[in-house]
Amino acid sequence: MITLEKLGSFFVAGRQVRVTGHPKRWVSYSSNVTTEYNPNGTFAIEHAYVQYFLPSQPRFQTPVLLIHGGGLTGVQWEDTPDGRPGWLTRLLEARIAVYVIDNVERGRAGWCAIEGEWPDQPVVRSDEEAAQFYRFAFPGHQFPMKAMRYLSAQTVPRWPSTSALQASALAATIERMGPSILVGFSQGGGLSFQAADRQRHHVRACITLEPHGIPTSFSPGVRNIPALMVLGDFIDQDSYWRDMAQRGRDSLVAWQKAGGRAEVWDLPSLGIRGNTHMMMMDRNSDVIIDKLIAWLDQHHEEGDFS
Amino acid sequence: MITLEKLGSFFVAGRQVRVTGHPKRWVSYSSNVTTEYNPNGTFAIEHAYVQYFLPSQPRFQTPVLLIHGGGLTGVQWEDTPDGRPGWLTRLLEARIAVYVIDNVERGRAGWCAIEGEWPDQPVVRSDEEAAQFYRFAFPGHQFPMKAMRYLSAQTVPRWPSTSALQASALAATIERMGPSILVGFSQGGGLSFQAADRQRHHVRACITLEPHGIPTSFSPGVRNIPALMVLGDFIDQDSYWRDMAQRGRDSLVAWQKAGGRAEVWDLPSLGIRGNTHMMMMDRNSDVIIDKLIAWLDQHHEEGDFS
Repeated sequence: MITLEKLGSFFVAGRQVRVTGHPKRWVSYSSNVTTEYNPNGTFAIEHAYVQYFLPSQPRFQTPVLLIHGGGLTGVQWEDTPDGRPGWLTRLLEARIAVYVIDNVERGRAGWCAIEGEWPDQPVVRSDEEAAQFYRFAFPGHQFPMKAMRYLSAQTVPRWPSTSALQASALAATIERMGPSILVGFSQGGGLSFQAADRQRHHVRACITLEPHGIPTSFSPGVRNIPALMVLGDFIDQDSYWRDMAQRGRDSLVAWQKAGGRAEVWDLPSLGIRGNTHMMMMDRNSDVIIDKLIAWLDQHHEEGDFS
Repeated sequence: MITLEKLGSFFVAGRQVRVTGHPKRWVSYSSNVTTEYNPNGTFAIEHAYVQYFLPSQPRFQTPVLLIHGGGLTGVQWEDTPDGRPGWLTRLLEARIAVYVIDNVERGRAGWCAIEGEWPDQPVVRSDEEAAQFYRFAFPGHQFPMKAMRYLSAQTVPRWPSTSALQASALAATIERMGPSILVGFSQGGGLSFQAADRQRHHVRACITLEPHGIPTSFSPGVRNIPALMVLGDFIDQDSYWRDMAQRGRDSLVAWQKAGGRAEVWDLPSLGIRGNTHMMMMDRNSDVIIDKLIAWLDQHHEEGDFS
């Protein structure tokens, strides 16, 4: 049961472009509908989309912002590929206010189709690359492979050049939200730490799930913000992830030096086994979100956020 | 206040493609991260995304499916560009179960970036084309022009060739939902009538808002499904819309001949003035959704759906 005071969505950041001088062309919508299309004019690009869910009697006041990974959208927090309730549902059932971003060029944020405006071509992750990158090859992993097609379906094209635009849109989202708790996955984890540094006046906690691209240094004077890095299973058996985890640990040391607090959950060493990169979709996804909610409760009780 | 038994999302329809023989290329994610990208492998394309919201104590059992217009996504039913609660909120406040589709190649459904797979290039609606097409030039119209940038932001690229794919994904959505009430806008209105014809065993009512592309004939034996076409203001002053409205009326006659019931709301003649094509975003959007909910209540009472 979920009781909401309000739900809705908004757009943040972005810019307007004016296109001129492109030739008109004929466009066919069906065998009997052909119209002339004018590609010139004014267009909005590079904004992010944010959907929000505000419980009536929140567990605590500060909302959580869920920040997806590369090539994914806010869908990754919804029902799991095999149809179980996802972390969005579990957070709302716990009466936590949740904002879900579709960052620049992902999902409902749309993308820039104006010729020549973005420097590069998009990439899309194949099932084969996903299986390798997400650690689906290790025996005993918990990803529901029979539902792989629904993970493929939520995988969208991604532009390698848009990280700075995504950082800006994330900053604008936090400025609009005010005090907030970040939960960032993979690419979104790196972006979360950037935002925790730059928007330190608003960020109250920073949880990252197997983050990519955390900064290696932070401006001094982070005001004691608690940070948590969550790592799944099989990390030590995979040289790519072993390096990534080490870089994450090094970044957390830099975060502590700048004044923050830091903690690492190595899930297998906590007795939680078999987690892939997609821990919010794994069969034991509920175990992890319950543990994260307990972590939030503890930091709320300790006064890290209201 | 909105009380939900469940919320979540799923994907329907689509197919898998195998890509082979494309060259690998180097992709730069930042000044210090460059990796080799392999565009070959297995990919999921041409599915639709559906987000659902199921109230705890529904007003009636049959859910509503909201079907967006061309170049738009399910966002059009959420908060209005000027930040008021949208029709999604109003329907949930009325305890009506709602499914919101992002059809093939829109929003969270993603799109096919595989070279050569789709025959044409996408088009995007400029602010100038939108202003003309949506009837924002008529004095006395109710669209909140100061918030135009948020309508631009929710406008996404669209492939003219995907109508048949969208019809298939809509059919698959209805098959999954079972008995359902369709609410389709513009392009989504035409698709709704196609679905009401083909999925007549499940469709219990068909509401269309200034529909485009309604079929001109239907298979005989439509089982008395009530249909409603809603038309805004200034239609008679705009030759494009005058033609479109006439075609809609002709299609409704065909619908009746096939066994359906049909009704037209010409909003100005009902005393509701100033509505543009974007009636769910106009300043009087609440007036229209209240009237639609009353229409649904009446048809529920008359036994058209449970």
